[in-house]
Amino acid sequence: MNHKILYLSREDVKNVGLSMAETIEAVEQGFIEMGNGNVEMPPKPGIHPGLGEDNFIHAMPAYIPAMKSAGIKWVSGYPGNQQKGLPYIMGLLVLNDTETGIPLSIMDCAWITGMRTAAASAVSAKYLARKNSSTIGILACGFQGHTNLEAMSVLFPLKKVKAFDPSKENREKFAEYASKKLGLETEIVEEPKMAVTGSDIVVTSGPILKIPHETIKSGWIDEGTFISCVDFDSYFSRDALNEASKWTTDNIDQYNHYKDKVGYFQNCPKIYAELGELVTGKKVGRESDKEKNFAANLGLAMEDMAVAPLVFKKAVEKGVGIWLPM
Amino acid sequence: MNHKILYLSREDVKNVGLSMAETIEAVEQGFIEMGNGNVEMPPKPGIHPGLGEDNFIHAMPAYIPAMKSAGIKWVSGYPGNQQKGLPYIMGLLVLNDTETGIPLSIMDCAWITGMRTAAASAVSAKYLARKNSSTIGILACGFQGHTNLEAMSVLFPLKKVKAFDPSKENREKFAEYASKKLGLETEIVEEPKMAVTGSDIVVTSGPILKIPHETIKSGWIDEGTFISCVDFDSYFSRDALNEASKWTTDNIDQYNHYKDKVGYFQNCPKIYAELGELVTGKKVGRESDKEKNFAANLGLAMEDMAVAPLVFKKAVEKGVGIWLPM
Repeated sequence: MNHKILYLSREDVKNVGLSMAETIEAVEQGFIEMGNGNVEMPPKPGIHPGLGEDNFIHAMPAYIPAMKSAGIKWVSGYPGNQQKGLPYIMGLLVLNDTETGIPLSIMDCAWITGMRTAAASAVSAKYLARKNSSTIGILACGFQGHTNLEAMSVLFPLKKVKAFDPSKENREKFAEYASKKLGLETEIVEEPKMAVTGSDIVVTSGPILKIPHETIKSGWIDEGTFISCVDFDSYFSRDALNEASKWTTDNIDQYNHYKDKVGYFQNCPKIYAELGELVTGKKVGRESDKEKNFAANLGLAMEDMAVAPLVFKKAVEKGVGIWLPM
Repeated sequence: MNHKILYLSREDVKNVGLSMAETIEAVEQGFIEMGNGNVEMPPKPGIHPGLGEDNFIHAMPAYIPAMKSAGIKWVSGYPGNQQKGLPYIMGLLVLNDTETGIPLSIMDCAWITGMRTAAASAVSAKYLARKNSSTIGILACGFQGHTNLEAMSVLFPLKKVKAFDPSKENREKFAEYASKKLGLETEIVEEPKMAVTGSDIVVTSGPILKIPHETIKSGWIDEGTFISCVDFDSYFSRDALNEASKWTTDNIDQYNHYKDKVGYFQNCPKIYAELGELVTGKKVGRESDKEKNFAANLGLAMEDMAVAPLVFKKAVEKGVGIWLPM
């Protein structure tokens, strides 16, 4: 056995240089496969180590035959880590050869998780937002605020971003990113409402909470807006949510699990479609300029496995990473 | 983040030098924790890539609080690999820090899988075989034949081994191992029956088959014998199985899954006990010198996670492996 496995650290994965446009394309392709019933994605089991009540490590396996992708993400979330100067989310992804099962690559999963989550928002927006959306509101300007803005800027003719974040440091870093890196007119707003009203696209990307803070009230969202709830239903009053014309998700089974077993998404609208149904045309996306459409995507193993082979391929081409003996 | 992850190749894991005695002790400790309800081990999901109908890659997560062990084994089985000169079973194990979730080590899982499977046989034998067992029959002399013999030799005053294998190469390699390495009187037998009748302990360690070959017939097994069916029920006629005084397994839930969903263990005896119940004294083990006792252990994520921290600790102490940037 002279087989070698390519190890990619967090920096390596980033340095491979997969673009957001490529990521969005791969994730959309994954959703097409899923919409056509051609993805194997078993329920994700988890363990809950340590003393922190909300600690988890989840196993997220998936197989996408058409993309020759099979593997698993093994990802932990420890809320207490931030106090220790460690990331909340950490983990590894193993990519396997579909023909032999042999591990091809082990890679840090943080970058892929961030990118594919934003890419899924953008794929939802492609089918649910107005094509000419030019103003975007971002509520909470952390990592997902950045990547979601980038992803939307790939698919829409964005001109202006209105950004809200309670942390001065976060919003200043974000403003610099949005203006300098993406060339957008950037307004830091003092009130959450100012990021919502008047926006064509809204992304809520704060912490995911079991008891929603319900900051966004009924009447704030304009007609024609698309909202990506990256932080589930945390940001919305129930009245605001029930203004939804179309309330969608990336996976109904997982959504129902979160709703019925974990306790998220209480009193939310009825699911109109899964993203796989939208991208395959099995359900129609936006039908008028007046609809208020929502995506509450949960993050799927399929999305990771749609992106991982591209990272691996580019890493091999560019000579990034460490080859390990099996 | 200056954290480093220790990578251990297949050779590294072996070279760490964890003994079979240490492995058995760790696996028994794991079963005590499990028997006391202190192990988190969710169902193992899998994907089934490629064209081979029986290909699988299984996710096996477990958390053993008392052993400060949390992690996952991601292990593939591709029956067609042998024709390609590749192992049937391949995979990786990730060990996580229970306090932060951070990955501590990534290691090849082949050695641990082999060792812990044999160790579980031995733990079963400790409670179900006669203490003075001195003659052992091994049917099929592959990797599991070797490790099971070694494990039994740790716990029992073995003097003689009778070995059957259709492959001349296998049985000659095995005979050399048994006589030279373990110092046992070694007899290669031409007929399966000769390895069964007259043995205090019997291990069947052939391929696991959905349609059992049922080689071992009623009347072959002596009174007082303990049998470890490493290859499930493949080797036994139903009549021979139903001579069992005590038919046991390592995990009833998983056993029932294999029986009811996958199709193994049809018309087998009723389960008397889980191994965790035996090691904690919740169910009594052997009660007379006449019992014919069986263990049909399936292999649990808990067993891997009981052993992995010891491998990691020894590797750190001995400076084995490659430290990877996270």
